[in-house]
Formats: sequence, structure tokens, C-alpha cells
Amino acid sequence: MVDIIIAEHAGFCFGVKRAVKLAEESLKESQGKVYTLGPIIHNPQEVNRLKNLGVFPSQGEEFKEGDTVIIRSHGIPPEKEEALRKKGLKVIDATCPYVKAVHEAVCQLTREGYFVVLVGEKNHPEVIGTLGYLRACNGKGIVVETLEDIGEALKHERVGIVAQTTQNEEFFKEVVGEIALWVKEVKVINTICNATSLRQESVKKLAPEVDVMIIIGGKNSGNTRRLYYISKELNPNTYHIETAEELQPEWFRGVKRVGISAGASTPDWIIEQVKSRIQEICEGQLVSS
Amino acid sequence: MVDIIIAEHAGFCFGVKRAVKLAEESLKESQGKVYTLGPIIHNPQEVNRLKNLGVFPSQGEEFKEGDTVIIRSHGIPPEKEEALRKKGLKVIDATCPYVKAVHEAVCQLTREGYFVVLVGEKNHPEVIGTLGYLRACNGKGIVVETLEDIGEALKHERVGIVAQTTQNEEFFKEVVGEIALWVKEVKVINTICNATSLRQESVKKLAPEVDVMIIIGGKNSGNTRRLYYISKELNPNTYHIETAEELQPEWFRGVKRVGISAGASTPDWIIEQVKSRIQEICEGQLVSS
Repeated sequence: MVDIIIAEHAGFCFGVKRAVKLAEESLKESQGKVYTLGPIIHNPQEVNRLKNLGVFPSQGEEFKEGDTVIIRSHGIPPEKEEALRKKGLKVIDATCPYVKAVHEAVCQLTREGYFVVLVGEKNHPEVIGTLGYLRACNGKGIVVETLEDIGEALKHERVGIVAQTTQNEEFFKEVVGEIALWVKEVKVINTICNATSLRQESVKKLAPEVDVMIIIGGKNSGNTRRLYYISKELNPNTYHIETAEELQPEWFRGVKRVGISAGASTPDWIIEQVKSRIQEICEGQLVSS
Repeated sequence: MVDIIIAEHAGFCFGVKRAVKLAEESLKESQGKVYTLGPIIHNPQEVNRLKNLGVFPSQGEEFKEGDTVIIRSHGIPPEKEEALRKKGLKVIDATCPYVKAVHEAVCQLTREGYFVVLVGEKNHPEVIGTLGYLRACNGKGIVVETLEDIGEALKHERVGIVAQTTQNEEFFKEVVGEIALWVKEVKVINTICNATSLRQESVKKLAPEVDVMIIIGGKNSGNTRRLYYISKELNPNTYHIETAEELQPEWFRGVKRVGISAGASTPDWIIEQVKSRIQEICEGQLVSS
């Protein structure tokens, strides 16, 4: 018998669960069509499930007055939200409360006179949204994605540092330590979401204890890729899949223990499908051997 | 001919130069005897030079009303200073202005509601002095000398971090990064003195370019030992001496380039003595060979 263990913290975080729930609820009260501004999460399967319910991802070209538009958990710049409202759309803000906390943090640091460093991925929607809030409160700052980006910050005497909520902790630590060495005063508001680190810690714990690790999540999801890298380093038999269909029987030959984790945007129903499919594969191998 | 290069930044820092000057000047105006509370610097030779001028190191047993007592650059706890004044002593405060800045920083952080982390050596006089100022302003905090010391700080949501002025930068960076990961908010006031890092950088630059490195400074001086460790890692032919007498001729056999650096408490006249002695040794070897 194969042992299949799902990591203690895996899959949807609080913010994504909340956004999906808000999207489902918005269907009841909507007059026009219901859209999400961009795919609600980095998960094509869940996006499809919602599409079948009547929630369509869109970049906004087809929005008409009276339609409902859901701001996904990543958030958007305030001027963009304003523009949606001006078009006569009903806006449902499903921005994750932890992301809202980053928006508030950059403005608090600005009010306190700090030059802002946002540690994160320059093209990530959350970062683009946060930069919008920084602009709106007349703050000055930069995004630091690699250590080479910190130069501009070192010209300032007082630097305030925050992070994209899904930021890797080791890199954040590196950036904070480095900047603190070079400028007079640093204030750090640690906005890294607990969910990410708990998920990463669970993978670190589980990966060395199993024969094979399966990481489920969108191929374009940064936090899933990081789970994959963390796991791969501790267990070379780590595979990154989006759905149960990608599971290969040869991964499980002679395997006794399988670990599963999943990125922030993977719904529970996909984790369960993967678990069932692994069980089937392993039982089939038992029968055929 | 041997090439002897003195590191760009070596020896007395601003604070020590200032303290020695204040001690010398105090002789002119003193009524009673002139003391320093403990040796004015980690350098027995310079302490002796001052003794010959009339400035005596003391722990205070023999102080009499009307005597002059000089607080050395490390600083002391305010209650101790108060006690000296109450004894009717003339107190000359030669505390380094950069150390005063640490005293102010821990109280500023306290007023702002932070639990204070002072990165430094627990038994260092500067640290003991700073802790006195922290107590005096009703602050709470700890000294972090190794990473294992940070536990207490992690129980607090808001942590303010400062450093002993002669703190090693890499360790400071490590502590700041680590604490920033675990608590909600961190404020760092970087109180590491530039002199230390400039001296360390100069050694890093010079050590790999010479055949032998000589580090001059008190054997009980922390900042000198760090210069020695930094140099030794880049150049195994590194020697730590206190005076020219310790130089061994065999260190210089066949040597073309010699580098010299010195800790914060080494006066220029000792550096010059060491340079002359090396020159003599090398010329002697040329003659004898």
C-alpha cells in the first residue's frame, strides 16, 4: 500500500478562498454580466469552473455599464479602480486584506518620510497595484527584485522596506540586511504573508520524508514554482504538475510514500483528484506486478 | 628594496583622537590629579605615554574631591557619571560622539515603542554604557552577541535595532535580516561607525596585494582582532603585534611587499615605529645575504 501525505499547509490561502467566495456570491446579486479583471487566480482549472458558473475573466474590453467586475486578490492600482467605477461598473473588491496591508504600509512609510523599497517581482500584478498606491500617496520608491536593484535606495538616508506578500523570505532577509548596512535608518514592515511561509515550511518538512513529492499549481504561479524549487533541493524526485492528468505512472514504481503540496491558487478539489489518481496508479502497479 | 604600505585607513579613529586630545588639554586646567576612568584606549603604550604626562588610568578607588576624571570614548552608564559628579570630581566627557548617538538611538527607539536590540559584545564597556542609557530612559531590550541571543526579541511585535559602533557589519546584517523575518515591524538605526568599516575595507584591499601583513593593536582590542581575522583569511602571512619589538626577522625573509594596518586605538607614533623597524630588518637581511 502506498502512503499519500498532503502537506499540512497546501493550496488555497485565505485571500484566494475569500476572492472565490466573493465571486460566487456576486452572481446572486448581479444585474449584468460578472467579470474578474484578469484570471481570479493562477489556476486555469478553477478559472474554468467559475466560467461555467458565470464568472468570466476579462481584461475589460467588453465591460458594459451595470456589469459586475471583481478585483482579484492581487489588487490593482487605485486609479484603475477609479476608472472602473467611472464606467458605471459595480466593483467588488476582492483584494486580499494582507495585500491591502502592503498598500497601507507603503503610504505609512511615505508619511513618515521614508524612501520605499518594495521587495518583489517587478511585473507581478500585486506589485503593480502596490506601486499605484505608492504613487497615489505621493511616495517615492523602487521595486527590488535582485540585489542589483538596491542602488537607488542607498542614495537615501531613511529607507522603508516592505515585501510582496508572497516574497521569498531568504531574499527579503538579504535585502533588509544589506540596505541596513548602507543607510542611516531603515524601517521594515514585514508584509510577507504567513500562508506562504507555512506552505514552504510544510514542504521542507515533508519532502525529505517521502520517496516522491508532487507539487500542484499553475505553471505560471511564482509561489508554486518556489515550492517546487524548495522541494527539489531536498528531494530530487519532485514533480510540478497542474492537473492529475500529468501524473506519470513511472514516477511511482516501487514507491512507498508520496507527498503532495500545492500552490496558493490550487483548489482543494484538484488536490483530491491528484491524490485519487496516484492511488489508482499505485494500485494498478500492484495488480500488474 | 622592500615596499612598506600603510593601509589607507589605519589606527586612531576620530573618537579616540578626540579623547586623547581632551585628556592632554585637561592637564592645563586641572587643580587636583587627572585620571581616566579605566585605560583611555586599548593600547598600553599610549596609556603609558599619557601617564608620563600626568594622566593616570584608574578604576576610581583613589579619586578625591577636586580631581579631574575623564570619561573615555567608550562612554559609561549615566548613573555612574552622576555618581562621579556627586563625589565633587570634575568630569570631562570624552565619550565618542558616535557612541553618544547610540545612547540617543536606544532612547529614541524606546520613545517610539520599540523593544531594543543592541548588536554587540555583552561585556564591552561601550555596550555596558549604552545599556545604562536604555535603563535610564525606561527602555527594554537585549544585547545580541550571537544569533542564539535573538529569541527574546522575537516575542515582541516591534523591534528597534542598533549596533555597538565597532560591530562587524556581516553579523549586524545577519541579525537585522533574521529579526525582520520574524517580527511585524523592525526599525534599524545603523550606528556602526564608518571608521571601523573603512579600516576593514582597507585591510581587505591591501592584504591580498602584499607578501606579509602586520596588524598592530592591543591584544585585548576587539576591533584589532577583527582586522587580524579579515587579513589572515586573505593572506595567511598575517601577524598581530602590539609593538615593534614583537616583529620577527624570519617573517620578512625574501619578502618584497609588506602591508601594515592598525586597530582604532593604535597611535600614529607606534605605526611609524613598526614601519621603521621593518625597514631595518629588511635592510639587515639584504646586507647579510
